[in-house]
Amino acid sequence: MVAKNALYAQSGGVTAVINASACGLIETARLHTDTIANVFAGRNGIIGILTEDLIDTSFETKEDIAALKYTPGGAFGSCRYKLKSPEENKADYERIFRVFEAHNIGYFFYNGGGDSQDTAYKISQVSKERGYPLICIGIPKTIDNDIPFTDSCPGFGSVAKYVAISIREAGLDVASMASSSTKVFILEVMGRHAGWIAAASGLAKEQEGQAPHLILFPEIPFDETVFCQHVQKTVERFGYCAMVVSEGVKYANGNFLSESGLKDAFGHAQLGGVAPTLAQMIKKNLGLKYHWAVSDYLQRSARHIASQVDVDQAYALGKAAVEFALQGKNAIMPIIERKSNSPYRWEIGEIELHKVANQEKKMPRDFISQDGFGITQACRDYITPLIQGEAYPPYRNGLPNYVTLKNVNGVKS
Amino acid sequence: MVAKNALYAQSGGVTAVINASACGLIETARLHTDTIANVFAGRNGIIGILTEDLIDTSFETKEDIAALKYTPGGAFGSCRYKLKSPEENKADYERIFRVFEAHNIGYFFYNGGGDSQDTAYKISQVSKERGYPLICIGIPKTIDNDIPFTDSCPGFGSVAKYVAISIREAGLDVASMASSSTKVFILEVMGRHAGWIAAASGLAKEQEGQAPHLILFPEIPFDETVFCQHVQKTVERFGYCAMVVSEGVKYANGNFLSESGLKDAFGHAQLGGVAPTLAQMIKKNLGLKYHWAVSDYLQRSARHIASQVDVDQAYALGKAAVEFALQGKNAIMPIIERKSNSPYRWEIGEIELHKVANQEKKMPRDFISQDGFGITQACRDYITPLIQGEAYPPYRNGLPNYVTLKNVNGVKS
Repeated sequence: MVAKNALYAQSGGVTAVINASACGLIETARLHTDTIANVFAGRNGIIGILTEDLIDTSFETKEDIAALKYTPGGAFGSCRYKLKSPEENKADYERIFRVFEAHNIGYFFYNGGGDSQDTAYKISQVSKERGYPLICIGIPKTIDNDIPFTDSCPGFGSVAKYVAISIREAGLDVASMASSSTKVFILEVMGRHAGWIAAASGLAKEQEGQAPHLILFPEIPFDETVFCQHVQKTVERFGYCAMVVSEGVKYANGNFLSESGLKDAFGHAQLGGVAPTLAQMIKKNLGLKYHWAVSDYLQRSARHIASQVDVDQAYALGKAAVEFALQGKNAIMPIIERKSNSPYRWEIGEIELHKVANQEKKMPRDFISQDGFGITQACRDYITPLIQGEAYPPYRNGLPNYVTLKNVNGVKS
Repeated sequence: MVAKNALYAQSGGVTAVINASACGLIETARLHTDTIANVFAGRNGIIGILTEDLIDTSFETKEDIAALKYTPGGAFGSCRYKLKSPEENKADYERIFRVFEAHNIGYFFYNGGGDSQDTAYKISQVSKERGYPLICIGIPKTIDNDIPFTDSCPGFGSVAKYVAISIREAGLDVASMASSSTKVFILEVMGRHAGWIAAASGLAKEQEGQAPHLILFPEIPFDETVFCQHVQKTVERFGYCAMVVSEGVKYANGNFLSESGLKDAFGHAQLGGVAPTLAQMIKKNLGLKYHWAVSDYLQRSARHIASQVDVDQAYALGKAAVEFALQGKNAIMPIIERKSNSPYRWEIGEIELHKVANQEKKMPRDFISQDGFGITQACRDYITPLIQGEAYPPYRNGLPNYVTLKNVNGVKS
């Protein structure tokens, strides 16, 4: 068998560990140069493929590739660009396969969320129709934890750990201040449609009275009166109220509490600013002193306190993608299969891309407590294993010593 | 000499390391029970003294006191309450000294910022006037780094480390997304009147092109046009712009960019929301996609990534306070004296409280670059030593294992 090249691309919002998948993929591919001659990467994801802007990863040293395991962000650039169907946009697919051909690409690895798995699936379909021999493998990634079939999504465990730590720390802060100053603290976290990240903050509460006292989920319609009553009651009982709110919280009529008015390339509303909205409600209705924080990109890039389990899984999925490809498997995505909760054991499995594409895994309703403001034991049992272990990066001069790759272009066709 | 009791109180906004000072103080006092019989703590700072709500720290185990070294927030509760002068509020001082007397207090340790050092000084003065034998020692604490005479203030090094790490991480995230999505990222940090914390973020930039590309200081009057030009230029040059903005940024006329309208007990305006204000400007003037984060309490409670130097100094100052007291020194505050930058060496010194009271240390103008948007080498040389070392807390079940003290009340008089 003549060796062919691989093409790897990162897609969608990046995470603290997407580069760990890239690391697993490239390190594994480098062990099999008889089959995978070289790994190219799309600069800024699929945009780099469409514009034939390919990074030749062979210029990167072994040490720099290893450093990807502890570097957040997307080392080759990511993008928000959703390929339309081959019927709607023939030109894009034409271009992609011309680039594949020009660079002797026999393996395509697409590292992203649900939208990206859909793209990977479409490309695998078109390769069949065109008779272009291509092994096409998706690699899951998303802090939103909403890709189906995989027990967890790389990126989620680390953001889960970050928000749980953050609300525990801020909770201790507010507890100290509450007698004469701040009584309410609001931490806004990501999660457009599902409350996975908000739910993770609930792990910080191990005893009655600890933060978070209140979690607002996108799954539970927001009611201002009920919310304010709950805050008031909490302050009366514990002296303060530290809460976590998902950016995707909606009123019963489906309107988001706060929309910035912007939409991303996938047509999703770009949210932000729920925390200050809630703060105004608290001021108006309860007259309590408040502080609020919006963690935004900080939560998904917080590699300095990444979950070891998350890093391990991200790496293993990148590695498995190459191993599956070497076994000739096609149009699949490696997944995490949970074998047991305690002790936590997981293995790599696989799922056909066509089953994953454009699906969204909702958070089970029984993960949210009856009153809608907390998490259940089932939720704890699910998330707790995912935040275990502290995968600290190396430091230089007091700061994490993250790598910036050379990102040298491959030869143009 | 008959042993007397000590009274310790925390004041003002808490930090990631104020409890490390408490730890140094209590551990050292416990070695000298022949002189300091017991350490009481004011519940919620001086309010606990005024209400005779004293915590008896002898109920706390050695292990729990040791755990204070890695626990953020104020373990005994803090407060925002400024004592007026003895002329204006005789009753408060009367009450304080009755409580001192009832509990045989011979040592008063007040752990706080500039306002609190003023309080400590007033109490030392009144003790003299009343002929009440009291040793009164201030312990510096503030993330704002604005207490004079001490080279650095405990709490600042850790928030400095946190914001520098955060903008480095978020910068890598935005760099990945910029080609098709977010081009501007704004991180709002604390710092009401001085740009120390904003300046610290500048340490993340070690090479041209790295984040932060832009820092907005309270010291530099804000000009919307100049600001937007700078953002535009940065995006053109590097593809994106990641910036850090101090909550205290003001227009040339002295108005804050964003005021919440609330004031704290010291009469300072409670700020917040500069980041979304700037985001709106960028949207309106440049039409660029943005994200913003407000780290608020997260930055000052982020014990999970505290600076080892900061923890060491906080502990040393608490320890020194007791040692000075044992030497019979009075009405002073232990300080950090910098002996050299490279290698960084520091020692504990002392300063009279009357010199410190109500003073504010401004950031030297030559710490800010000529264009007003960055930091100078002098600034780097000053801050870099303060963020060295990672003082990781212990973890249990994936989260920092912070201590909650018993906080049992002492016997009432």
